[in-house]
Amino acid sequence: MSTHEAHTNPYEIDLDRNPANYVPLSPLTFVRRSAEVFPDYTAVIHGPIRRTWAETFTRCRRLASALEKRGVGLGTTVAVMAPNIPELMEAHFGVPATGGVLNALNVRLDAAAIAFILEHGEAKVLLTDREFSPTIGKALALMPQDKRPMVVDIDDPLGQGGDLLGALTYEQLLEEGDPAYAWTLPDDEWRAISLNYTSGTTGNPKGVVYHHRGAYMNAVGNVLTWALPHHPVYLWTLPMFHCNGWCFPWTITAMAGTHVCLRRVEAKAIYDALADHGVTHMCGAPIVMNLLVNTPEEARRPVPQTVKMMTAGAAPPAAVIGGLQRLGMEVTHTYGLTEVYGPAVVCAWHEEWNDLPLEQQAVYKSRQGVAYAVQEAIMVANPETMEPVPRDGVTIGEVMMRGNITMRGYLKNPTATEEAFTGGWYHTGDLGVIHENGYIELKDRSKDIIISGGENISTIEVEGVIYGHPAVMEAAVVARPDERWGETPCAFVTLKPGAEATAEDIIAYCREHLAHFKVPKTVVFCELPKTSTGKIQKFVLRDQARAL
Amino acid sequence: MSTHEAHTNPYEIDLDRNPANYVPLSPLTFVRRSAEVFPDYTAVIHGPIRRTWAETFTRCRRLASALEKRGVGLGTTVAVMAPNIPELMEAHFGVPATGGVLNALNVRLDAAAIAFILEHGEAKVLLTDREFSPTIGKALALMPQDKRPMVVDIDDPLGQGGDLLGALTYEQLLEEGDPAYAWTLPDDEWRAISLNYTSGTTGNPKGVVYHHRGAYMNAVGNVLTWALPHHPVYLWTLPMFHCNGWCFPWTITAMAGTHVCLRRVEAKAIYDALADHGVTHMCGAPIVMNLLVNTPEEARRPVPQTVKMMTAGAAPPAAVIGGLQRLGMEVTHTYGLTEVYGPAVVCAWHEEWNDLPLEQQAVYKSRQGVAYAVQEAIMVANPETMEPVPRDGVTIGEVMMRGNITMRGYLKNPTATEEAFTGGWYHTGDLGVIHENGYIELKDRSKDIIISGGENISTIEVEGVIYGHPAVMEAAVVARPDERWGETPCAFVTLKPGAEATAEDIIAYCREHLAHFKVPKTVVFCELPKTSTGKIQKFVLRDQARAL
Repeated sequence: MSTHEAHTNPYEIDLDRNPANYVPLSPLTFVRRSAEVFPDYTAVIHGPIRRTWAETFTRCRRLASALEKRGVGLGTTVAVMAPNIPELMEAHFGVPATGGVLNALNVRLDAAAIAFILEHGEAKVLLTDREFSPTIGKALALMPQDKRPMVVDIDDPLGQGGDLLGALTYEQLLEEGDPAYAWTLPDDEWRAISLNYTSGTTGNPKGVVYHHRGAYMNAVGNVLTWALPHHPVYLWTLPMFHCNGWCFPWTITAMAGTHVCLRRVEAKAIYDALADHGVTHMCGAPIVMNLLVNTPEEARRPVPQTVKMMTAGAAPPAAVIGGLQRLGMEVTHTYGLTEVYGPAVVCAWHEEWNDLPLEQQAVYKSRQGVAYAVQEAIMVANPETMEPVPRDGVTIGEVMMRGNITMRGYLKNPTATEEAFTGGWYHTGDLGVIHENGYIELKDRSKDIIISGGENISTIEVEGVIYGHPAVMEAAVVARPDERWGETPCAFVTLKPGAEATAEDIIAYCREHLAHFKVPKTVVFCELPKTSTGKIQKFVLRDQARAL
Repeated sequence: MSTHEAHTNPYEIDLDRNPANYVPLSPLTFVRRSAEVFPDYTAVIHGPIRRTWAETFTRCRRLASALEKRGVGLGTTVAVMAPNIPELMEAHFGVPATGGVLNALNVRLDAAAIAFILEHGEAKVLLTDREFSPTIGKALALMPQDKRPMVVDIDDPLGQGGDLLGALTYEQLLEEGDPAYAWTLPDDEWRAISLNYTSGTTGNPKGVVYHHRGAYMNAVGNVLTWALPHHPVYLWTLPMFHCNGWCFPWTITAMAGTHVCLRRVEAKAIYDALADHGVTHMCGAPIVMNLLVNTPEEARRPVPQTVKMMTAGAAPPAAVIGGLQRLGMEVTHTYGLTEVYGPAVVCAWHEEWNDLPLEQQAVYKSRQGVAYAVQEAIMVANPETMEPVPRDGVTIGEVMMRGNITMRGYLKNPTATEEAFTGGWYHTGDLGVIHENGYIELKDRSKDIIISGGENISTIEVEGVIYGHPAVMEAAVVARPDERWGETPCAFVTLKPGAEATAEDIIAYCREHLAHFKVPKTVVFCELPKTSTGKIQKFVLRDQARAL
C-alpha cells in the first residue's frame, strides 16, 4: 500500500490484522473442534478397535507432545510407513502440531526408494508398521548411519508378521506424551504440513511440499465438491499415503465423521465394512471399482445405504459405472495430481444429463471436468506461448492450474519447482482438450502420447475402445518404435477370468471403432504392472514394447 | 523467519508463494465459477423475473465495469438502499470486483441516520430502490452538497410508489458497462469488501469493515454448518443488508443455488415461494418463525419439501420450534453479531438428543452453542482478567471470539476498534455462561442485565418463562429503577390475538417458575418496539420503565 493510498483510502487506516481477526488456516483446527463438540462420536473404527473423537484428539496431543520431547519441531520431517490404520490418521494431526512435516511413505516402494526418500526428506523420526519391517530394515541398512531416523514401531494388533525394529513402539511413544499438550496452530499458514513424493515413473521421485493453507482449503474443497453431510462414515480404500489420502484425513475430521480403517483393499473386507459400519463415502482408483464390480455375487453382502464413491484419473468405463450403480453406488469423477493435493478438478454433474441417452452420458462422464471451487483456475494451453487452446474439444494443449490447492514446490529442487510454475501456472504435464462447456478432457500424459506418421494418438482414447470389448478386463496402450511410422500403438491387455480373445479379435474390434492409424499394431496379453496406487506403469510397458 | 532457520529448515528455501500456488481468498470467485459450470441454472427468481447464472454474472460484470467508468475503484464506498432484490445480490459481487466496498443500508433507518452513514462511509455512489425515495430524498437534503453521492435509481418493476431521484437508473448504468469486463480478485485478501453499520441502539452507528478473506470463510462456514447440498433454493427472508445477509449472497452462489428474492417478509409471499419454487433453505429472526407459525391455517399453502431454517439470537421458544416442525421445517439455531459476519456460533445438534424428553431437548436448544468451524475460538471470560469462567453453566462472563470471521474493525474509529479487540479477542458485549459440554448460553447483553439487591438477573431467563404462558405472544424484560433494590425486572408483554391475561396472571405464573427476586414487579401490555431486523429495542423500553 502506497503512502498516497493510505491517505486517501480510509479502509487502510487502523484496520490491521490482529490475533482476534486473523488466524492461520490449518486443518489442525478441525480435530480440536470435533473433539470438543462431538467428543463421544466415533472417530475411528479399526477391526474391533473403536475410538471417539475425544480419545483420538488425546492420542494426537500425546503424539505431538512425545515427538516434541524427542526433538521434533519446526521443519522436522517425520516419516510414516503404514497402511490405512489409525496411527497414520493421527499422524496427520500430531506431526504438524509440533511444526513438523508429515512424510507418508508409499508402502509398496522397495528399500532403495525408501532409503532415497528418507535421506532426501531428512526424516528424523520414522513410524513404521511391523508388516513392513523387511523393507524398512533393508532401507535403513542402505542409509549412512548418521542419516538414519529414530525408528518407532507401530505394533498394530491387526498387522501380520514382521519384526519390531526400533527402540520403542508407537503406544510407548504416546505414553511419553502429555495428553493435555497445548494444541496450537502454525505461526504462518504457509508453513509446510506434509511432504509427498511423486510416484516417479522415471528418475528419482520428487518431494512435493504441502502448506497448511492448501491442506485446509482442499479439506473444505472436498466438502463443497461432494456436498458432504455431517458425520459421514468414510471407508479408507484410498491409500492415506497417496496425496495425504486426497486430504480426507482432514475432510472427514472437519465434518466429525468416522474413519473406517482398512489394512488391505480386498473385496471381502470392503463389503464387510459397507454392510457392518454403514459406510456412506469412499474413494479409490478405478481398480477399486473394478474389484467391487467383479466380486462374485456370492461373495458380496447387501448394502442398504447409498455409497458415494470418488474416483480419479482415467474415466471409469461405462460398464464399471453401470455396475456400481446397480450396487447402489454413485460415482463422482475427479482428477488431480500430487502437486495439487489430489483431486482439484471434478466432473461436476448436471442433473439434467441424467435424461440423456446413455451414450451421451458416458461422453460427459469421460470428461475430467472443471476446477474445484477452491482451486482458482484451470486452463488448457500451449505451453510455449501460454495461449489457451480454443474450446473446441479437439485442440490439444497442456493442462495447467493455479490457486490455493497447489504445492509450495519440490523440496530441494528449485529447478523442477521453477519449471513446474513457469508463467504463473502449475504445469501438470497432462495433455488434454477443453470442450465448449469448459469441461476439460485428458488425452494423455505429455510423455505417453503416441506420434504416428506425424499424427497424435491419444492412448487414453485407444484404451477406452479396447475396454469396450466384452472379454477385456484391463488395457494399456503405449508407443512402440516403428521404422516407417516413427511410433505405432502397442496394446497390453488383461482378459477377464475365463474370457477368451485373440490379438486379431482385439485389433478387429478397434478397427470398428477407431480411425485406422490409431488401431494397435501389436497386442500383448499379460498382467499389467502397477504402482501402489493402482496406476499402470507405462514406462515398464514402453520398455517391453521396445524389446518386442 | 530468521536467517538461522533458513539455514536449517529446508522447507523455507525456494518454496515461496507465487501466482500459481497462492490466490487471495475472495467470494468474488464463486459467481464466476457458478456461471462457468452451471450457466443455465437459475440464479435468481424475483416475481416473474428469472435469470440464469450466466446472465447474472454478465450483469455483475456490467455493474463493475460501469461503476469503474464512473470512478469507483479501490476503497470507494458504494451504498445500496434496497430490499431483498436481485440488484442488491448483484452488488455483492459487482461492487467489490472494482475494489470498491459495498455498504448495504438498513432500509428502515430514518433520513438522519442514512445521512450520517452516507457521510461517515464516504459513499461516492448510491444505488437506491424507488420505494425508499422519500427517506433518501430527505437524507440527501441533509447532507452537504459536496458530500452527496451520485444517485442511481433501482426501478424495480415489483416496487411500488416513490420517485426517481438520480440521473440514471440501474439498468441504464448496466448498459454503460462492458459485459466482458475482466473479473479479477483483489490484490490482497485483507482488502475491505463491505461496510455494515451496527444497528446502534445507543449513539451513532459504527461502521463494521469486512474483509474478502472473512467473507469467503463465512460463505464456506455456512456450507459446513448447514451441510448444504448442491443447488439449494434459498428464500430471502433475512434482510440482505443485515451483515450482508449473513454472507448468504456468497454462500448460495458458491453452491450454484437459486436466490429467491422477496421485497417484503409477509406470510402469503413466503408460503407462495415455499410452495411454488421448492425452497429448501431460509434464514430469519425469530419474528419470521412467529409469522409462519401464527399464519392462520387457511392462509397457508402445503409445502411438500423439508425446509431448513436458520435463526439467530434469542433461542426460539419450544412452542415455536414445535410449530415449525409440524410445518415440515427444521430449525438451526445460531448466534452472531455484525462484527463476526453474522452467524459465528451454532447450536450444533447431536442426533442422540432427539431421544431425550422434550424438556431436556428444549434446554439444549436454548443454548447458542459452539464456534463455527471457520471461527477459531469462543470463550466466556472475565473481561478484566481475561480468565475463562468455569464450565459450570452458572458463572457469567463476557462472550468473546477470535478467528477468521471477525471484522477488520470499525471504520474511522480506532478507539472503538481497540476496545473491541482488547487482549486479542473480540469482545461481544454479550454476557453468558459456558456449560460442561462447551456450549455457551447467552444470559444478557452487558447493558441489559438487571442487578437487583446485588443479584444478577438475566432478562433472557425471565423472558423465557413469560413466553411459556399460553396467552403470551412476545415479551421483553428490562430493569426498572427501584429505591430499595436498585433495580427490579419490568416486563413488557404482547398477548396473542384474542387471548387475555392480567398483570397479576403473568406475575403469578412467573412465581411458579422463577426465584422470587427474579419475578417482574411490573407488567405492561403493549406492542414491542423493534429494529428493522426484528430485534426488540430495549433502550426504548428502559426509558418507558424509568418513566412509569
